[in-house]
Amino acid sequence: MTVNTPLLLPAIEPTANAALAARLQHQIDHKTKPQGALGALERLALQLGLIQRNETITFNAPQMVVFAADHGIASEGVSAFPQAVTLQMVGNMLAGGAAINVFARQHGFALQVVDAGVTAELADHPQLLKRKIAAGTHNICAGPAMSLAQAGQALQAGMEVVRGLPGNVIAFGEMGIANTSAAALLLARLAGLPVSDVVGRGAGLDDGQLAHKQAVLTRALARHADTREPLAVLAALGGFEIAMMAGAMLQAASERRVVLVDGFIAGAASLVACTLLPQARDYMVFCHRSAERGHHLLLAHLQASPLLDLDMRLGEGTGALLAWPLLQSAALFMAEMASFDSAGVSGKN
Amino acid sequence: MTVNTPLLLPAIEPTANAALAARLQHQIDHKTKPQGALGALERLALQLGLIQRNETITFNAPQMVVFAADHGIASEGVSAFPQAVTLQMVGNMLAGGAAINVFARQHGFALQVVDAGVTAELADHPQLLKRKIAAGTHNICAGPAMSLAQAGQALQAGMEVVRGLPGNVIAFGEMGIANTSAAALLLARLAGLPVSDVVGRGAGLDDGQLAHKQAVLTRALARHADTREPLAVLAALGGFEIAMMAGAMLQAASERRVVLVDGFIAGAASLVACTLLPQARDYMVFCHRSAERGHHLLLAHLQASPLLDLDMRLGEGTGALLAWPLLQSAALFMAEMASFDSAGVSGKN
Repeated sequence: MTVNTPLLLPAIEPTANAALAARLQHQIDHKTKPQGALGALERLALQLGLIQRNETITFNAPQMVVFAADHGIASEGVSAFPQAVTLQMVGNMLAGGAAINVFARQHGFALQVVDAGVTAELADHPQLLKRKIAAGTHNICAGPAMSLAQAGQALQAGMEVVRGLPGNVIAFGEMGIANTSAAALLLARLAGLPVSDVVGRGAGLDDGQLAHKQAVLTRALARHADTREPLAVLAALGGFEIAMMAGAMLQAASERRVVLVDGFIAGAASLVACTLLPQARDYMVFCHRSAERGHHLLLAHLQASPLLDLDMRLGEGTGALLAWPLLQSAALFMAEMASFDSAGVSGKN
Repeated sequence: MTVNTPLLLPAIEPTANAALAARLQHQIDHKTKPQGALGALERLALQLGLIQRNETITFNAPQMVVFAADHGIASEGVSAFPQAVTLQMVGNMLAGGAAINVFARQHGFALQVVDAGVTAELADHPQLLKRKIAAGTHNICAGPAMSLAQAGQALQAGMEVVRGLPGNVIAFGEMGIANTSAAALLLARLAGLPVSDVVGRGAGLDDGQLAHKQAVLTRALARHADTREPLAVLAALGGFEIAMMAGAMLQAASERRVVLVDGFIAGAASLVACTLLPQARDYMVFCHRSAERGHHLLLAHLQASPLLDLDMRLGEGTGALLAWPLLQSAALFMAEMASFDSAGVSGKN
């Protein structure tokens, strides 16, 4: 560790608890259905029960947090949209018009937008948390995206954001033009994958632009070939919203909150978090498989089976909120379904 | 057609409407997101708009209908559960304790159970519709499951059930011990697939029981080798709940209601419906891919990409209701998301 000030990460307990797991599984298996017939919902109920250390799963005050930041590597022409769109979309979210607003209203999530490092200054707004580390990262092709100190600050700021939020469920999303580039580089380095497997079209590159992005990211990764220590990798290849989200996920896990992970960029933050503290993985629900190339490899690396696979690639946290009713269904079937005994239904032959 | 009384099927309009489709697609493409970034949700919004002939998608009084019946082929030992479970599970549903009750309450669906052909007599209940064609089908291995007249009666009864329901969305589910056998046989014959590809474990057969089921179904299909006309296939290989559900789906489509199709058995009913009137397909939303072997082939035959794939194999309609919030999300993003123009967000470079 070469950071000057020591990095203070929260203590996270693994959720493993053999006695509770057996009680939960018994409850699941005695509901009036063939064993295993609710598939992923049963595995989700087990995970949620272990997170909450309870046979009854309850949710309160669910929070949606969108971390926004700009990326120096946008100057290399790796995104289909101009950098100004980060700021414009933050404005759209604060005005209530983005997809994430629609789904947050649908599902009763409180929405906060965090300025982790947008280039422009943002006006005050009740749903905006100003935690800007700097006005965008540096271009990864030319040097580290941020300093080690900034990476540590971003992690700490994310932890602080979560400490200030109520509820026992937090969904994580993001906005940041060019952030699929940072996410792809983090994935390539932390999971040991070739750039060609993790570079995708982001918000809509054509074939020629995709080839250009791949060349840029190959150059960027080569520039940081010797950087291997996790915090240094985050600083070299990450983004402020990704670093802050990783810190926020760690804090949420340390408080035994359910962590809803959105798509490719939130997935990269979860990868950073799990690299720093592997037991954070226990608290994460991977909500969807993005259409962004490389996300399936990220999920496989984390041994995650996402709940949804809807060919989406929007980010913001939209995939996380679309999966939310499935968590409610998992809690409800555990609480409300009859057992074979209570309903007088015969078991297998 | 060898049925004595003519089969009166409802008139179903195809939903195709190039002008409306163009307006819907324009609306979808100008929302503040990269084109196509909401993936399956965008295709769903287009389908729903075409069904409702409107750029605004609205839902009212959604209905869940569970068709229940017994199957003579159960006597061949093709199910892991005794036949009495059909009746017991209908009782569980009427008492509110089955998985389908939990999800219907969660999502505000009114629930009706239809006795299409349960062996036992059922007591009156406000949520029970008594439409029994007969006390279970005959054993398909020995002859047709039902007469052609009964198949016609079941279709008509299903149409009547839907005529009596309010709302513009109907979800279809079922309960019937051994009904994966009937569904598999219908799929094999109507889609021209080998029995070995469509026989699955149902509610939980082990390897030996699965081999036995495959032998039984191979014998059953050979018994009806010359039966090819769709209504005759339904009579020979089907079940009362499947036939009634097929009629109900046709009626719902004829009234331009959204048809939510659950898993393998509801899928077999949708296959029957689409074989009788192919334009019914336009109104069907395929809600999930069941873990039951053969369901992916059924979906492929109908060119359907299901919304969910949760490794479930419960039936009842559970997969249909778990997908419901995604339809609401599709309607809401169309109604509430800002456009690039209205939000002042820049388009692609």
